[in-house]
Amino acid sequence: MSKILVFGHQNPDTDAIGAAIAFSHLQNQLGKETEAVALGTPNEETQYALDYFKLSAPRVVQSAKEEATQVMLVDHNEFQQSISDIAEVEILAVVDHHRIANFETANPLYYRAEPVGCTSTIILKLYKENQVELPKEIAGIMLSAILSDTLLFKSPTCTSEDEAAAKELATIAGVDLTSYGLDMLKAGTNLSDKSAATLLDLDAKSFPMGEANVRIAQVNTVDLSEVMARQTELEEAMTEEMAKNGYDLFVLVVTNILDSDSELLVAGQGLDKVEEAFQVKLTNNRALLKGVVSRKKQVVPQLTAVFN
Amino acid sequence: MSKILVFGHQNPDTDAIGAAIAFSHLQNQLGKETEAVALGTPNEETQYALDYFKLSAPRVVQSAKEEATQVMLVDHNEFQQSISDIAEVEILAVVDHHRIANFETANPLYYRAEPVGCTSTIILKLYKENQVELPKEIAGIMLSAILSDTLLFKSPTCTSEDEAAAKELATIAGVDLTSYGLDMLKAGTNLSDKSAATLLDLDAKSFPMGEANVRIAQVNTVDLSEVMARQTELEEAMTEEMAKNGYDLFVLVVTNILDSDSELLVAGQGLDKVEEAFQVKLTNNRALLKGVVSRKKQVVPQLTAVFN
Repeated sequence: MSKILVFGHQNPDTDAIGAAIAFSHLQNQLGKETEAVALGTPNEETQYALDYFKLSAPRVVQSAKEEATQVMLVDHNEFQQSISDIAEVEILAVVDHHRIANFETANPLYYRAEPVGCTSTIILKLYKENQVELPKEIAGIMLSAILSDTLLFKSPTCTSEDEAAAKELATIAGVDLTSYGLDMLKAGTNLSDKSAATLLDLDAKSFPMGEANVRIAQVNTVDLSEVMARQTELEEAMTEEMAKNGYDLFVLVVTNILDSDSELLVAGQGLDKVEEAFQVKLTNNRALLKGVVSRKKQVVPQLTAVFN
Repeated sequence: MSKILVFGHQNPDTDAIGAAIAFSHLQNQLGKETEAVALGTPNEETQYALDYFKLSAPRVVQSAKEEATQVMLVDHNEFQQSISDIAEVEILAVVDHHRIANFETANPLYYRAEPVGCTSTIILKLYKENQVELPKEIAGIMLSAILSDTLLFKSPTCTSEDEAAAKELATIAGVDLTSYGLDMLKAGTNLSDKSAATLLDLDAKSFPMGEANVRIAQVNTVDLSEVMARQTELEEAMTEEMAKNGYDLFVLVVTNILDSDSELLVAGQGLDKVEEAFQVKLTNNRALLKGVVSRKKQVVPQLTAVFN
C-alpha cells in the first residue's frame, strides 16, 4: 500500500508545514504509514524555524494521485487552496482552524476543526488525547506555527488555548518564547531581495466570494513604507496575476508585525466593495487598517459579507 | 441573547434526537445557553426510547432565524438535510459521522466528525474530554441512538468504539443492552398503520449526485413481504413525491433487522445506474441486497460513484 500523504495548503506558511510534520508523526506513532509533504518550498520564516530545530523541509509535491490514493489535510480544507488533484483522492482526515467551504467527500472521515488561532494548537490536543510523546524538535516547529499564526499572540484569532499550548511547547522545545518568536518573525520580513511576483505569492489564498474570485495575499514587515515604496511594481504584478489566473480582485495586506496594523493595496474590480467592507476610503488604491493583522478574522469575513 | 439551537437532521431518527439532547446538555454544562430542538416529531422507535428513559421529545422547529442567530448541528451537515434557513444563521459547531458535502460557513467553527457508527459515540468522548458527568437518562437515549444506528452492532458502519461506548452507556443507564435494543428496534417496525407517504418520509434524505437529485428512504421491518405487499401504493407515493419535490430518482431501502438484508424498491430516472451501483438486475423495480443494512456505507457511496 502506498503511503498516506499529509500536507497543508498551497503557498505554505509555518503552520501548514509544521502541522503536516506534527500530524504525520502522530499518525505514524498510531500505526499509519504517512509522509509529511508540502505544496511549495518553505518561506524564510519557516526555513528559519526548520533550521533552528534541525528539521528537513518536507518534500514538495505537485500531484497526489501519482503516488497515493489517500491523503490527510492540515491547516486548510478549501479545494482551491489544496493540491491540484484533491478531488481525485480519498481524504481520510482534516485538522484545521478555518471556515469550511468548497470541501466535500464521498465517505465519512475524521474532521477536527476548532476556532483557535493555529492548527498546531489542536494537534497538541491530539497528541495528549492519544497519549503519544511529543519529540522536542516537533514541539519546536509546532511552537513556531503558533507564534507565526498569532503574530506572537497579538492577532485577534489568538485564543487562551493557543497561548497555553505555546507555553507548553516552548518548555518541551527548550526555547524562550518571546525572543525566539521575534527572531523567527523577523526572519520572514526580509522582502527587499524578492521580486514583486514572489512577494505576492508568499502567503496568498484564493476565495470565491459571491460571483467573484478574490485573491488575498499577506506579507509581514517591520516597515510598511519600505513595502509601499514598491507600489507601482506591485500593482503591475497584481494586474498580471489577475489576468493570468482569472482573479477579479486582488487584495494585498501588508502587516506591520511590530505595530499590529496593516495597509491594503488593491487592484481589480470591486474596489467599492473593499471600501464598504472595511469602512475606509481608498486613496491611491491604498488604505490603512488600524489593528488589523488577521486575514482570516479581519479581512475574509468582512469582504465575504459584502460580496454575498 | 437568544438561545443557541441544537438539532439533528430532517426526518429525525433516534441519533438525530438523542445526540441533540446529549450535546445540548453538554454545552449547557460548559456554560453555553442552548436548547435541543428537532426538525420533526420522533418516530415510534425514538418515542419508545424517550418514554423508556422519561425524556420529553424536543420541540419541533421549522425555522432557525426566527428565534436564534446561532445553531449547532448534530448527526448531519448537508444543508439540504438541515433546517430550511440554515444558510441564514451562524453554525457554531457540528458533531457528525457522515461524509461532508454541501456545507459551508463564513467563519471558523468547531467541527468534530469521526468515521464511527453513531454521533452519540463521539458525544460520549466529548463528555469525557470535558469531564462532564453524564446523567442516566441521557446515557439511555445515547445508548438507544447507537443501537439504532448500528442495528444492534450488525451494520458495517459499526466500529469497536461504538460497541464499547454502548456497553459503557448501558451500564450508566442501567439496562440490558440486547433485550432493550431488540425491544426498541421492534417498536420502530410497526408500519401497517402508516400511509405510504408517511412510510416514505420516516427516515428519508436527499443527496445531490452528479446532476441528479436522489431521494433515499429507509424503513426497518421484521417482515420484508409485509412491506412489499404494498408495492403499488408505495410506487404511487414515490412518483408523487418526485413530482412534488423535484427528485430524479427515489430509492426505498426496506431493511429486515432480523436477517440484516435489504430489498430495494426504486422509481424515477437512472434505474440502470441503480443496477450498475449494486451489480443487480431489477425485477419489477425491486432487488434484494444481501447483507446490506447501511444507507451511509452500502448505498450512498455506491450510487454516488456511478452518478459522478
